[in-house]
Order: sequence, then C-alpha cells, then structure tokens
Amino acid sequence: MTASLLEQLIDAFRILPGVGQKTAQRMAYHVLERDRDGGQRLADALASAVERIGHCARCRDFSETEICATCANGSRDVHLLCAVESPADRLVIEQATGYRGYYFVLQGRLSPLDGIGPRELGLEKLAARLAEGEVQELVIATNPTVEGEATAHYLAQLARQHRVKPTRLAHGVPLGGELEYVDRGTLSHAFGSRSEMPL
Amino acid sequence: MTASLLEQLIDAFRILPGVGQKTAQRMAYHVLERDRDGGQRLADALASAVERIGHCARCRDFSETEICATCANGSRDVHLLCAVESPADRLVIEQATGYRGYYFVLQGRLSPLDGIGPRELGLEKLAARLAEGEVQELVIATNPTVEGEATAHYLAQLARQHRVKPTRLAHGVPLGGELEYVDRGTLSHAFGSRSEMPL
Ligand SMILES: [Zn+2]
Ligand SMILES: [Zn+2]
Repeated sequence: MTASLLEQLIDAFRILPGVGQKTAQRMAYHVLERDRDGGQRLADALASAVERIGHCARCRDFSETEICATCANGSRDVHLLCAVESPADRLVIEQATGYRGYYFVLQGRLSPLDGIGPRELGLEKLAARLAEGEVQELVIATNPTVEGEATAHYLAQLARQHRVKPTRLAHGVPLGGELEYVDRGTLSHAFGSRSEMPL
Repeated sequence: MTASLLEQLIDAFRILPGVGQKTAQRMAYHVLERDRDGGQRLADALASAVERIGHCARCRDFSETEICATCANGSRDVHLLCAVESPADRLVIEQATGYRGYYFVLQGRLSPLDGIGPRELGLEKLAARLAEGEVQELVIATNPTVEGEATAHYLAQLARQHRVKPTRLAHGVPLGGELEYVDRGTLSHAFGSRSEMPL
C-alpha cells in the first residue's frame, strides 16, 4: 500500500532542519487547512530554486546568474576578500557586520579523510584571484573547529605567497561553535577585531 | 528590482507555522547546500497535496479520494462517532487514544460573528448521519474554548434529537501536571468532578 499524499507531504517536510514528525504534521495541516496558496507558492519557489540556483563563477556563492549580485557590484572594496566555508556563513557576515569587501565561498573545509582537498574548495580559483593583485587582505572566516583552523592556516600560507595579508576573526567566537549559530553582536565584534595571522 | 530566487524561497518558507526569517534562511540554505533531491521531493509533494487533497464526502476530513480511508474501513465501531473541529484534532485523537469509531470533522466551530453557522460546519450532513440509526454515542471533542463549548452544546442537542447519547471529553488536571501550575478554572472543575478512588 502506497502512502497517501498527506503522508508523503508530512514525510517530505522532515527533510528540513529541526523538523521532526510532530512539526511536519503541523506544517502539512497548516498548509492544507489555512494556506493552500502559500503552499503552492512554496512548491514553486522550491522547484525553481533547486533547479536554477547554481554557483557564482567568481566567488562560488549561490547564484542564479553566472556572476552573483555581490561580485557584479562594482562599488564594494576590491582590497578586501573574505573566505568563508558556506553560503550561510557569507550571509550572516553580510547581515551582522559592516563588511563591504568581496567574498570567496569555499563550499567546505579541508578534510583529507573525506577526500576534501584544495581542489574541492576551488583554491586554484582563489589563488588566481589573489594573483590579480587587487586584494590586499584576505579575511579568513572559517569556523573555529579543528578542520576550520587547518583550512585557515592553509589559506594564510596561500595569501602570503601572493603578498596578501591574512587576517582571522578575533576571539569571541566560541571554540567549537558554528558561525551560523553565533549571535550577531558577538559575530560583529569578532569581525571588527580580526587580527593578522601569526606565521 | 525583483527578488532573487533565493530571497523568494526564504520568503516562501515563512508561510509555515513557527518559521521566522532566521529559520527560513536556514531551511533554504540547508536544502540548497545539502539536500536538493529532498527539496524537489518536498516541492512535488506540496504541489500534489495542495491540488489534489480535498475533503471526504462522508466525514469532511482531508482525503484524496471521495471517501477517506477511515470511513472506507468497515472494521471500525459503527456505534461511535467523534466530532472534532479540525483534521489536526482528528489526527491527535487517533494517535493518542485507543478510539476506533468513526469521525466527523466540523472544519471549524460555531462563530456567528464570523458568519460560521451550522451550514458551514456541515451539520445537515452530521444530522443525516445520526438519522441513519447506527450511531449510539456522539463523542464531542471540540476545544474547551467559549466557541468550542457553544458548539458542543449545539451538537449535544442535535444528538439528543436523534436519540444518540452525547459525551464530552473529561476536563481535569493533566497527567503529570503540578496542581500549582494548573489554571484555576480547570482545577475548580477537576475538584468538583472528583470521584471515589478505586480499591
Ligand atoms: Zn560571486
Ligand atoms: Zn471520511
């Protein structure tokens, strides 16, 4: 016996982070009882996003165009480049801090055991960017985890090879914490207190 | 300037109950970064559910067929009918209790000021059901709100007109609840409804 459409919908909601069986049920019933138009809009937005959102050719952030809106914005500070692990990290930095340079989204962090090396993080693209000569400071905003720190040190070396100053967010981000879940005030302070990475 | 697909997706997630801007962002990034297949599945499930789930012709619960699976199930107790306000209420009763009679889903409660009367709740259909003569007890499980109580009294009258016994869920101190935190109305009612302890 195949699952009913309602059961399929409840099951499908569980792909979302933090959504268990009870919340999924509540979501399904809410949409069906009170907001079918909104449900249709969410279905359309999801289908379009999943199909048409790719990655920016310049910074690897999410983008529905070849070059994302941030990279295409000529009025930002070309001397600053900020390397982050994920699009979500880029978003919180953009929203929480006054940073108005450009970004480079690694889409991961070095993790040799998982087969994630410099190539998977697009570091040849980052190196080419640094070689262009405009970037003066690489703000390394990887997460303060073991792998994030290892990635930061690798990026710092890469920056110095291109005579670019590597900096790191100030302490204040809790050890072992994920940027995405840090409160905005702390993140903003940490961003403002970034310091040059020691050799 | 129109919103990007990503912004549209974040905005669309906010139709879900309990989902604010931050949660919506997390959901959108989660789907795009980690589970595009799941996102496509959710989009399909939502579109199908919104378009194809209607109401059972017999009990008014959600159903993708003319008669829902519960009403079509001949092995339940035909002497019992339970009236609930919403499909979600039907679901919790089915999941939390041992009840195995049939249901009638009002899809609301009497609310004259909002133009919701007996006709909007399908009560002529409920009356016809009671007139069939098989139902012996109408379990009235409307919510203990002012409108829910008014609806319960109306349903009880309707039941008695058809020589069906109306019953109501017991009110009282919730299992595991501390007396100190129970609201006074509930506590007073529970005190007045005390019963002799069994041996
Ligand atoms: Zn870009
Ligand atoms: Zn039914």
